[in-house]
Amino acid sequence: MTTDDLIALRRDLHRRPEPAWREFYTTARIVDELESRFDLDGLHVGADAIADEQRMAVPDDAELDRWYVQARDAGIDEAILEQLEGGYTGAVAVLECGPGPTVGLRVDIDGLPREESNDPDHHPAAAGFRSEHEGAMHACGHDAHATIGIGVIERIANSDFSGTLKVFFQPAEEIIGGGKSMAKSEHIRDVDSLLAVHIGLDHPTGEIVAGIDGFLAVCHLEATFTGEPAHAGGHPEQGRNAVQAMATAVQNLYGIPRHNDGKTRINAGVVEGGSAANIIPEESRIVAEVRGETTELLEYVRANARRVLRSAAEMHDCDLEIDVGAEAPSATSDGELVSIVETVATETPGVKTVLERDQLGGSEDATFLMREVQRNGGTACYVGVGTDHPGGHHTSTFDVDEPSIGHAVDVLSGTIERLAREHP
Amino acid sequence: MTTDDLIALRRDLHRRPEPAWREFYTTARIVDELESRFDLDGLHVGADAIADEQRMAVPDDAELDRWYVQARDAGIDEAILEQLEGGYTGAVAVLECGPGPTVGLRVDIDGLPREESNDPDHHPAAAGFRSEHEGAMHACGHDAHATIGIGVIERIANSDFSGTLKVFFQPAEEIIGGGKSMAKSEHIRDVDSLLAVHIGLDHPTGEIVAGIDGFLAVCHLEATFTGEPAHAGGHPEQGRNAVQAMATAVQNLYGIPRHNDGKTRINAGVVEGGSAANIIPEESRIVAEVRGETTELLEYVRANARRVLRSAAEMHDCDLEIDVGAEAPSATSDGELVSIVETVATETPGVKTVLERDQLGGSEDATFLMREVQRNGGTACYVGVGTDHPGGHHTSTFDVDEPSIGHAVDVLSGTIERLAREHP
Amino acid sequence: MTTDDLIALRRDLHRRPEPAWREFYTTARIVDELESRFDLDGLHVGADAIADEQRMAVPDDAELDRWYVQARDAGIDEAILEQLEGGYTGAVAVLECGPGPTVGLRVDIDGLPREESNDPDHHPAAAGFRSEHEGAMHACGHDAHATIGIGVIERIANSDFSGTLKVFFQPAEEIIGGGKSMAKSEHIRDVDSLLAVHIGLDHPTGEIVAGIDGFLAVCHLEATFTGEPAHAGGHPEQGRNAVQAMATAVQNLYGIPRHNDGKTRINAGVVEGGSAANIIPEESRIVAEVRGETTELLEYVRANARRVLRSAAEMHDCDLEIDVGAEAPSATSDGELVSIVETVATETPGVKTVLERDQLGGSEDATFLMREVQRNGGTACYVGVGTDHPGGHHTSTFDVDEPSIGHAVDVLSGTIERLAREHP
Amino acid sequence: MTTDDLIALRRDLHRRPEPAWREFYTTARIVDELESRFDLDGLHVGADAIADEQRMAVPDDAELDRWYVQARDAGIDEAILEQLEGGYTGAVAVLECGPGPTVGLRVDIDGLPREESNDPDHHPAAAGFRSEHEGAMHACGHDAHATIGIGVIERIANSDFSGTLKVFFQPAEEIIGGGKSMAKSEHIRDVDSLLAVHIGLDHPTGEIVAGIDGFLAVCHLEATFTGEPAHAGGHPEQGRNAVQAMATAVQNLYGIPRHNDGKTRINAGVVEGGSAANIIPEESRIVAEVRGETTELLEYVRANARRVLRSAAEMHDCDLEIDVGAEAPSATSDGELVSIVETVATETPGVKTVLERDQLGGSEDATFLMREVQRNGGTACYVGVGTDHPGGHHTSTFDVDEPSIGHAVDVLSGTIERLAREHP
Repeated sequence: MTTDDLIALRRDLHRRPEPAWREFYTTARIVDELESRFDLDGLHVGADAIADEQRMAVPDDAELDRWYVQARDAGIDEAILEQLEGGYTGAVAVLECGPGPTVGLRVDIDGLPREESNDPDHHPAAAGFRSEHEGAMHACGHDAHATIGIGVIERIANSDFSGTLKVFFQPAEEIIGGGKSMAKSEHIRDVDSLLAVHIGLDHPTGEIVAGIDGFLAVCHLEATFTGEPAHAGGHPEQGRNAVQAMATAVQNLYGIPRHNDGKTRINAGVVEGGSAANIIPEESRIVAEVRGETTELLEYVRANARRVLRSAAEMHDCDLEIDVGAEAPSATSDGELVSIVETVATETPGVKTVLERDQLGGSEDATFLMREVQRNGGTACYVGVGTDHPGGHHTSTFDVDEPSIGHAVDVLSGTIERLAREHP
Repeated sequence: MTTDDLIALRRDLHRRPEPAWREFYTTARIVDELESRFDLDGLHVGADAIADEQRMAVPDDAELDRWYVQARDAGIDEAILEQLEGGYTGAVAVLECGPGPTVGLRVDIDGLPREESNDPDHHPAAAGFRSEHEGAMHACGHDAHATIGIGVIERIANSDFSGTLKVFFQPAEEIIGGGKSMAKSEHIRDVDSLLAVHIGLDHPTGEIVAGIDGFLAVCHLEATFTGEPAHAGGHPEQGRNAVQAMATAVQNLYGIPRHNDGKTRINAGVVEGGSAANIIPEESRIVAEVRGETTELLEYVRANARRVLRSAAEMHDCDLEIDVGAEAPSATSDGELVSIVETVATETPGVKTVLERDQLGGSEDATFLMREVQRNGGTACYVGVGTDHPGGHHTSTFDVDEPSIGHAVDVLSGTIERLAREHP
Repeated sequence: MTTDDLIALRRDLHRRPEPAWREFYTTARIVDELESRFDLDGLHVGADAIADEQRMAVPDDAELDRWYVQARDAGIDEAILEQLEGGYTGAVAVLECGPGPTVGLRVDIDGLPREESNDPDHHPAAAGFRSEHEGAMHACGHDAHATIGIGVIERIANSDFSGTLKVFFQPAEEIIGGGKSMAKSEHIRDVDSLLAVHIGLDHPTGEIVAGIDGFLAVCHLEATFTGEPAHAGGHPEQGRNAVQAMATAVQNLYGIPRHNDGKTRINAGVVEGGSAANIIPEESRIVAEVRGETTELLEYVRANARRVLRSAAEMHDCDLEIDVGAEAPSATSDGELVSIVETVATETPGVKTVLERDQLGGSEDATFLMREVQRNGGTACYVGVGTDHPGGHHTSTFDVDEPSIGHAVDVLSGTIERLAREHP
Repeated sequence: MTTDDLIALRRDLHRRPEPAWREFYTTARIVDELESRFDLDGLHVGADAIADEQRMAVPDDAELDRWYVQARDAGIDEAILEQLEGGYTGAVAVLECGPGPTVGLRVDIDGLPREESNDPDHHPAAAGFRSEHEGAMHACGHDAHATIGIGVIERIANSDFSGTLKVFFQPAEEIIGGGKSMAKSEHIRDVDSLLAVHIGLDHPTGEIVAGIDGFLAVCHLEATFTGEPAHAGGHPEQGRNAVQAMATAVQNLYGIPRHNDGKTRINAGVVEGGSAANIIPEESRIVAEVRGETTELLEYVRANARRVLRSAAEMHDCDLEIDVGAEAPSATSDGELVSIVETVATETPGVKTVLERDQLGGSEDATFLMREVQRNGGTACYVGVGTDHPGGHHTSTFDVDEPSIGHAVDVLSGTIERLAREHP
């Protein structure tokens, strides 16, 4: 594959961003690419790629259907698509190249529910590959990640690597819903070393971070407040106002005290409530996310958040239901792998700076796979690949500087080859 | 029409509740009923029934289409339906019966965006005429109102009434969006006396309120807060949080001081914000309603609400847009008409109690029509017809006690006949 | 007594405003005036004037001492002062003038804890009788009320009134703390008719309101939140923040829904919390007041307020204590008395307008005395005497237009005389 | 001085805690001790010890007088006391011991405005040296710090140290009000090396931290909201409620987003508002503290806090004044000094653990002195001396384990001697 091929693939995926568990087009396109280009020794698609019962936060059928139909209408291979029905997106590709270690590479493939910028200064808009899915966008570079996964397979297939390569095309990272299901699948069990990769993260093109740490443990909570409706003009006193409960909760969630032991985070990311201007709102909802630098800190914020939600409900005489959503742990990159990445990166053309370590400061469910491999006695490393991104991650003007895709392919495949040579 | 005919009509309308400006099935059903049963002297449908430029708070095309298609799929006459395209719902029926006064009757026909109860104790559920439109319900009796309009036409057509009867089947009362457009149409101009009617209002079956006053002036405000998204884990400090702005606004809107001069009301009836758990919310919205017992009191609450919204936006460094939505004034029932209604009601079989006056304590855009007629030198009266309603207005278990439909037809047609006799 | 005497007395009292239960100078000055001028048949001072156990919201000893010492230092008669020790302020004066009805007049005598304006446009400042007690002020006209009490005794003493007059110089009205103790004293038992009086209330000089109604039932609540202190920089997570609890409570107290049945009020009138900028606040306090147009409405607000306070405490893991403070009921003026006042007022020189009735819209613990008299079979009436007041009641620029003192004396003594003639 | 002498001194100071700028007894006691025991070469007291114009947050005269009188009544030497009038507390002691470096030791001496525990388990209560000043307490060990200062002077006076020792007995650390005035005095100019010391900080008795860093930059803000009073029952709409403004501000201050670059802190440490239950509050006040791990982070929080305060005022139509109070920068301990402390501590009897570095995680105005010395080319080091403290710093059960006073004297005087030997 030429650089142009990779860029074309990335742009095609960029045009069709699909949020968590709805990566129908994306997965089918990846599978199609893999099947047509490579002679793989294994290709596990959809339900075969994961531990089914570990999927978290899967949308309802109506939502899945909408995206499924959209993917089909885009003209993708229906035979592949059928394997994905029910939101079973994602795939694991296996390439056996003789005796040697089993090396895993995890890339995530989902998009975000946000509208992409139309500004002519926004490169995808100017160059004609802006999102065609209204309200969805690849605003975190997972289009590039999927492309990197393909690029690494091709590079390894054409190298003298001896060992087995498994590439995990993971769905639903943005809602930390997919990592656990891949970590608990059988495919991870024999992985000796796992690499994960993320582009950007405020590092410029040409900068590589050999080992990223500082993953915040994270948990999603969805709170539903149920009160009593009433006519807002005629009998306001008969209502039990679920929107007042929600607003009280939001104000106090953000007021949970900072903790001296490390980072904590809280976000009321999605809220809604009420049905009409003239009805005292009967129902409201908060989708919140809490994080902590460690499990203890996560627990601290979570316990406080629960108390806030409970008291806010009581304050307005509402009932409360809290659904615990997806969750991901913390993790660390192993020094041994980090130093291989560091060495390889230093020798990679186009790479100008190599940092040994940096902190993510956010969450990631790659941590499920990393911890699983480490628990089995293997090593894991999360690699950062700088890219000049004009807008911040998750904003409407995020974009990747495409040469960084090549850097990622170079550094990751170089690391995989060297790993096999050093630990045959 | 027998009582059974009226009940059957009411139940059919109940099964197909349509919110404001989406009363496609409802209007078409009324028009069909009118055309097939009566030899009317005028029937103005859709755009012909109103002053176009005065429609307020019309939904967007996608929303209108959805309901239009649903009405069509229900098998309604397409020729009628076409006259309603673009949300031009409602109709004015004219019956000329010789020389005499022009008497208007205004009934409203829209449903509410709320789920109807499934409880077997809820009569429409038990008797099989519960709403078939998910998330919509006739929770304020407008199904009965439309039926009363038909019933009165039939009764007058078969009476010795001399004069002209105009029945205004008004759309979009629940969002106070339709009244003004009918009040500003040509059809109101020659009306000498206007009656409006509402069922229920906490009065039991058999009780009539001859003249209702105490309409709260009302105004809808829609506030949109726009901040800046950011990754909630990685860079919370880069966000400008539109949900925090919204929550601050909600808390302080409900905290606007009570006013000693009379009733004031505020409700943040619909709120929403944010796009994903892990993104600092970039946008949020409040659909609020403010009311006052007088125009001055409305203005007091509105000015305070605007200041609260503006300061909440500033507090979280967000931009703010406030759209002023629909609005309705206050009004009073004229004593002359009230006493005719009172007299007629006292003589009506089934009516057990007659109250001369009561306060609505809510808002109504019938006030636009009432004030217009009064401005032209005519008189107006808003009549309350008691009905035992198990749940409160606007709640999921609201229902009407069907004999009250007959009471309404009796009292209103009796009043119209007597009016013509007394003021020929 | 000449008009000038009355004005001089009012100004002397104005210079020495004393808040609830601290009316040492005021009471002593009144007693001195009464003893020196009149040959009374009874003068009950301090503990003798009230039912001791019914005093509400008496300040602590240190506070009482401070005001006691200040009164003594002002050179008031120590013999009188000693009768007031312990905050036993107030007096009841009895004048027996032969057979006839026992008529009561209740006037209140306390000041408010607020700084008086220094503005040269403020008459007391310009004319040299501004408050000499820093932070205290007669901002509601009770200086005039006490003067009116004296003026009425003098007028009646010199009239042909046959009956008994009792004037109740009541302490602690502003905190609704004194009314009940006078209502439950023996002095009220034989009162056949009770008059109470208030000056101002937005009525201009020359306007009399014969009978005021619309007293809001009222109750004071004092909430104390106790959390856990912590170093705000080093360990914010170890605190349980009583100021966050208080702020949450304040926001939600003012958000208690309005009630359709009538007026409700809530005020967090005094708040405080915390000990130092760098300590997470361990304790906070809200002194709140709730009111309702009826007892039911008071109960509605009170129950909601309690739930808000409780939930706010829970939200920040604080303990809560609620002390129920003073309380006063609603009351109505009897028509019979109202019409006598109306007649007399109409004939009084200087009185330009007489309103039969008006609503107070606030609270008053005269209601305790009114209800007690009514319970015993007597009648009661609360009379409003207009006065041009440049600033609102309870503001730093409130003042009374002194001719209105004469109007009050005229109307009240005229009413008392007429009452005795009509109901001998 | 024996260990018992030091303990007796510490307990005497503990019994008489005096908050910032009110350390009259404390300073006089220290000065008395210094004068009676040592032959000092300089003793600068009160105004002579500081740069006058740099004092921050000095209380008003009434408050100063109250504490001054209390100190005088405790029988302290009036001649010394007079030097402290006007809140000029603190002292600098100078001991010249031949040629060599000038070494400074800074100890702080003020108490906190908090009630000390009465619990028999609280050692000072049980052993009879609990605070005799109601509402004040040595809850952060400054009684021990002052004692350590005396102890070190005595040890150095009796050692073979060659050089000059200056001990800075600094007032007003708790409100970060005194450090700058000592840092800007002439006494700091010739200091070559500065040691500062703090006891406790969650380290157990026997543990020494050679060099503490991680001082949060800090700033105090005092916001005053001024609205409009009104009668809460009669005319709530006429008020502009300063307590609602304050509560809105508190809720949103604590909601200022966390920052990814490091620690931020916010505390509304003292709040108050309103004058009476029945008056809409006209005025309120927040004494807040903001901190950041760096100057930039402090600036981030401060700018956000200002916007919150401003918007909260606007929301309730109040005026706002913000007084910027005291402020302290960040600082770091120099490695050279740290390693001397480390070496000495390791050899000190009773010391069981020595940590090279730790983070304070709070603020300290010793940083003013440290930065001044460093700016002049000298070195500075902040030493932590572990002590078992049953309650947290700033809580009512804080206490020091007295043997740690000896450890501090040993380590600090050992360091001073070694420093002089190594850098003669």
